[in-house]
Amino acid sequence: MNAKAAAARRAVTYVQNGMILGLGTGSTAACAIEAIGERIRQEGLRVQGVPTSARSEELARQWNIPIRSLSGSLEIDLTIDGADEVDTALNLIKGGGGALVREKIVAVASRERLIIVDESKQTPVLGAFPLPVAVIPFGWESTQRQLQALCPDVRLRAASDGSPYRTDDGLYLLDLPMGRIEDPAALEAALKRMVGVVEVGLFVGLTTRLIVGYTDGRIEERVPTDAPA
Amino acid sequence: MNAKAAAARRAVTYVQNGMILGLGTGSTAACAIEAIGERIRQEGLRVQGVPTSARSEELARQWNIPIRSLSGSLEIDLTIDGADEVDTALNLIKGGGGALVREKIVAVASRERLIIVDESKQTPVLGAFPLPVAVIPFGWESTQRQLQALCPDVRLRAASDGSPYRTDDGLYLLDLPMGRIEDPAALEAALKRMVGVVEVGLFVGLTTRLIVGYTDGRIEERVPTDAPA
Repeated sequence: MNAKAAAARRAVTYVQNGMILGLGTGSTAACAIEAIGERIRQEGLRVQGVPTSARSEELARQWNIPIRSLSGSLEIDLTIDGADEVDTALNLIKGGGGALVREKIVAVASRERLIIVDESKQTPVLGAFPLPVAVIPFGWESTQRQLQALCPDVRLRAASDGSPYRTDDGLYLLDLPMGRIEDPAALEAALKRMVGVVEVGLFVGLTTRLIVGYTDGRIEERVPTDAPA
Repeated sequence: MNAKAAAARRAVTYVQNGMILGLGTGSTAACAIEAIGERIRQEGLRVQGVPTSARSEELARQWNIPIRSLSGSLEIDLTIDGADEVDTALNLIKGGGGALVREKIVAVASRERLIIVDESKQTPVLGAFPLPVAVIPFGWESTQRQLQALCPDVRLRAASDGSPYRTDDGLYLLDLPMGRIEDPAALEAALKRMVGVVEVGLFVGLTTRLIVGYTDGRIEERVPTDAPA
């Protein structure tokens, strides 16, 4: 079993009968959805899932995970999701898979947020992975000009056919190769404040547990040592 | 001529040949689009317009205003728009007409922002008009719960058929009857920071000139006395 799948299996041991689960997006989150599906099949586990993307919803259906929408007074017990980078304070860059807006909405609606990564995603300082920022398509070049003040090399994400990539919410993504992000909370606030910016792929103070899978088979778990930001 | 139309005509005296104009949305902005159209017809005025809504684009076409999109390195010379409320510092509540996201993107891309209102829109303190906040439809009830901490009576705006109103960008609008907004800049920041919130109908420090039309025929002009926030 690879490192991602091993971490995902460990994560799914935290799932209990009756839980409402946030289902992340991406290759590692997909391993978790499969592992939940396995427990449903083998143990008759009863859970409901709130998917963070059309793709994850499709996968959840394949594994017979009952789907809930994020409506009414629904509170999510536990969200299991991946990350593109995680620092030593368990802050994250997310959005490489394009689902950061729904992932963040679901994360904020969850009591617990369990993040699973393979060892390659760990970094002392965030920023080597280009930071995704979701923007309104209308006037996106004007929004991009504002972002250039913080990151000159900001670029529009393209779909495989070369047209602008569209998120499930119809947004564009700008990717910001920041290099080093010294203060993730300050950068998140500065970006989110900008007109035209919908959401930022920085998840600061949201991780309640991190599970890291190593290629040598080890699995490590970490919880935040400081209070969430 | 009514107060709105008189203020709009005065505003359009600031339009010069060759300008790229931001075209606002709503009944007062519509008067300005008509007044621009009249000048094109009567004087051969040459301008281009960047509309802030599908409705304003349609109106601009009817008045033969050439349409530009907000693309590339386009800078808008002057935006003329209305407001739902304006305070003594020329801060605004906008979004009653549903176009606040594009109005704000266009406002920020403009060198000058001229706001036209009739006298009824003036207030010492913003907040009698419910503050519109544009949100992502996915998980909107979760976003609404966050907003309830600031405004217990927040409500989803409905279209005429009772379904949720959708903006031109596919967003929902939550209306916040705040009562009194003592610190518009602080409230704007607090709301915009929330996950799921796209944009807030507070326009702080953006107005470069206000034109007020009175029912008795007077027209007053004001410019901000303090530096923009």
